Amino acid sequence: MMNDERGPEFWMGENTFHVPMAMHKEQQQRLLSRLRKLSEIDLNGVVLLQGGRSQDWLRYDTDHERLFRQESFFHYLFGVKEPDFYGSLSISTGKYILYVPRLPRSYQVWMGRILSTDEYRSMYGADEVRYTEELPDALTHETGGVGALYVLSGTNSDSGSRCMSADFKGIERFLLNKDVLYHELCECRVVKTELELELLRYVNRISSEAHMHVMKSVRPDMMEYQIEANFCHYAYYYGGCRNTSYTCICASGENGSVLHYGHAAAPNSRQIRSGDMVLLDMGAEYHCYASDITRSYPVTGKFTEQQRGVYEVVRRAQMEVISRLKPGVFWPDMHRFAERCLCEGMKKLGLVRGDVEEMMKNHVGSLFMPHGLGHLMGIDTHDVGGFLGDVCERSEEPGLRHLRCWRKLEAGMVITVEPGIYFNWAELEEAMLDPSLKPFLAEEELVKYRYFGGVRIEDDVVVTPDGCEVLTVVPSDVEEIQRIMLQGKDVISS
Amino acid sequence: MMNDERGPEFWMGENTFHVPMAMHKEQQQRLLSRLRKLSEIDLNGVVLLQGGRSQDWLRYDTDHERLFRQESFFHYLFGVKEPDFYGSLSISTGKYILYVPRLPRSYQVWMGRILSTDEYRSMYGADEVRYTEELPDALTHETGGVGALYVLSGTNSDSGSRCMSADFKGIERFLLNKDVLYHELCECRVVKTELELELLRYVNRISSEAHMHVMKSVRPDMMEYQIEANFCHYAYYYGGCRNTSYTCICASGENGSVLHYGHAAAPNSRQIRSGDMVLLDMGAEYHCYASDITRSYPVTGKFTEQQRGVYEVVRRAQMEVISRLKPGVFWPDMHRFAERCLCEGMKKLGLVRGDVEEMMKNHVGSLFMPHGLGHLMGIDTHDVGGFLGDVCERSEEPGLRHLRCWRKLEAGMVITVEPGIYFNWAELEEAMLDPSLKPFLAEEELVKYRYFGGVRIEDDVVVTPDGCEVLTVVPSDVEEIQRIMLQGKDVISS
Repeated sequence: MMNDERGPEFWMGENTFHVPMAMHKEQQQRLLSRLRKLSEIDLNGVVLLQGGRSQDWLRYDTDHERLFRQESFFHYLFGVKEPDFYGSLSISTGKYILYVPRLPRSYQVWMGRILSTDEYRSMYGADEVRYTEELPDALTHETGGVGALYVLSGTNSDSGSRCMSADFKGIERFLLNKDVLYHELCECRVVKTELELELLRYVNRISSEAHMHVMKSVRPDMMEYQIEANFCHYAYYYGGCRNTSYTCICASGENGSVLHYGHAAAPNSRQIRSGDMVLLDMGAEYHCYASDITRSYPVTGKFTEQQRGVYEVVRRAQMEVISRLKPGVFWPDMHRFAERCLCEGMKKLGLVRGDVEEMMKNHVGSLFMPHGLGHLMGIDTHDVGGFLGDVCERSEEPGLRHLRCWRKLEAGMVITVEPGIYFNWAELEEAMLDPSLKPFLAEEELVKYRYFGGVRIEDDVVVTPDGCEVLTVVPSDVEEIQRIMLQGKDVISS
Repeated sequence: MMNDERGPEFWMGENTFHVPMAMHKEQQQRLLSRLRKLSEIDLNGVVLLQGGRSQDWLRYDTDHERLFRQESFFHYLFGVKEPDFYGSLSISTGKYILYVPRLPRSYQVWMGRILSTDEYRSMYGADEVRYTEELPDALTHETGGVGALYVLSGTNSDSGSRCMSADFKGIERFLLNKDVLYHELCECRVVKTELELELLRYVNRISSEAHMHVMKSVRPDMMEYQIEANFCHYAYYYGGCRNTSYTCICASGENGSVLHYGHAAAPNSRQIRSGDMVLLDMGAEYHCYASDITRSYPVTGKFTEQQRGVYEVVRRAQMEVISRLKPGVFWPDMHRFAERCLCEGMKKLGLVRGDVEEMMKNHVGSLFMPHGLGHLMGIDTHDVGGFLGDVCERSEEPGLRHLRCWRKLEAGMVITVEPGIYFNWAELEEAMLDPSLKPFLAEEELVKYRYFGGVRIEDDVVVTPDGCEVLTVVPSDVEEIQRIMLQGKDVISS
């Protein structure tokens, strides 16, 4: 929407966050600066992105339209919430043109008032707005008939999927450059601007409050999905966050040992029992920016000695990692460091035995923490760029091979720190037969954790010039958690 | 899940509904009976469907997995919640085989325990469970090497999209029949079984309760999306409904004149004002069965004379239609009948003038009710089969051309009845310049409704042998609505 005093912005109203379109403008400038520095850049060139297409959001062959969510690269540069747009940036002048679909007359009956190009221009702060059918002409003009179109081409390092290159009828008449845009745009997204950080602080604050709301309302005998319902309700009702960043993981008891529990085949449908730990990985999204937060605690609010033991080992690992974060730190080193902290802690608990160096060599840690220590965050929960920069082949080693970021930290990177200990019994049983792991495993002790589930503590942090700032504001201190949970004891669950 | 006493079922726990897999079994039998009656049927033939694929639920190029939701035809026959399955039914024997993906070892770390084929067999009540790589061999066996594979091929009459035909490596070695399955399966889906009706009653009851929860909690100054948050929370927390059947339309004031308000470009983000009507079209889904309910009322709970006038015209039209529903009634006739009721009512209100017959000829009603009177309901909100049976070309006439069902009612059909009056000012202004409409429009009166928005009342009904049963249990009587809204006055909004 347009706000006369503030300029164009995205805002869900009430107490929700005002996202200035200036944020996207700054991101455009960053990209353009990077591109202009490239020796081989075509200064007559034009960056062209195609936004998400409404047709891709239909469910199978039906006319059920899933709620549209913008494609992330397009969102990064333009912040447009509508489908079927294109956007271009002229490399030398920086001129920003949005191309909007010419909507049929019936749109005003079914979808709402058809905005004029001028209205779109003010709404998004574009220099010019054209209709998509004008793409060939407008781009011929922008490139002076000689410049190249810079379009995306690349492979997402987490999914292995190719990104969508802009395409339109007539694009074959243009010179296409697919070599640089993907890399440069990923690098832009890796280091957040101050305006992006403010937005991420907001969505982290709302998600943190929603987590604390859950802490107060959780009860034995509740269904796991009721936690999801309470989280989503809080984040939307109070924070304007219509989407979550990912499917909520509301695992109780043994389910806590399954990293991505909560999907359609395991839909948070277990009834929570009194002695259970819950492992709650839930984050809201606002203006397509993500948060990603996990807390684990006993559903009664009272940690048993066993629960507290595991919990404090994970918490200590997380705090140790966070205290070491600063520019220059190589993220895989932190992953290995976390594994070491976990092994040391588990040794003290009597869960593993032997020499920690030997455990590290044999990847004992990854048996309990099979996932990566953390990943870049931003417009996607698993944000782009983890394998750019100091690029490296993905490791083959246990644990490390799931690490989604393989580079040195830089100020402005936002990353999750999420160590965990899981008692995945199928995995442990196999490990107990594996000669390289068996000697380290205290079977007689581990068997007591068979139905424990797991503990993960996950915060989002931004790397600062001399350390880091934690964006998440949910306490992880045991006494604090117990205090918050107690507050809810007399309140009727919403 | 498997329940020893009840047999295989889908159940979200607690007070939610137990859906027996026997429901799907009965639906298989219905299909098989229909097929066996076809003169040209190949009795060595096998029906083969492919379920939804997980790859289709990734968001763009990222590894963000949207919550999987089963493809509707596959769900109808098999009730499987997991992606990447196939299912086959042997036409002569009725043998039901499920084909499940062979999951990688890592699945047990990330997604949960890998079930055995035996476990899947009990869970879904299949006769046999095989791995998808065994499809060619198993189907060769089932067809005796000579029978045809009956696969889906058809076009959804609402979206115009082609459905997915089952496909697998090696299918080219089989004789494929694409001519009958789509039609027969659509016809099966059109007429509900008693077990389906029980499920639809449940999802309607939960959605109705959620609507009443909203009635109690709605307030002036609330944001529209807070209504959506409250509805979704209630339906999930109390009813186990994780998905809505469609994007919630929470329109206040003028937004009420936009039929499909609430989409990503108009995301229920207006602040409700004290004098506003709200138009709330929200329905939950359980085990992939939909509900679709709309209520309209003043946010204060007190109807003004103007609001009540329009409201009662719509309500009367709805009641008149419902009182006429029974097998044999031609649905387009009901649409036209509703238009007539609306014209008569609006004439009494002084909004239109002249002869009602002339209004009908000139489609004055469709100016105020541009959508169809209602659509078939089931696994999709706009369910299949509206243009099968007494097939007809889609009408070109205003209003009627949006009618999604063009056939005679039969017992067991579930259909929405959703007349409405909208004051879409852009449309009305154009109509006032149209010589065929202008004479009927009382401009001086209509101008008072410029910011009114609209009224729609929508219930789901099932046609019974001698009439119909309304599945929706939200009151639409003005006094009742006011009474419920008053109940909420002293309760803090959740």
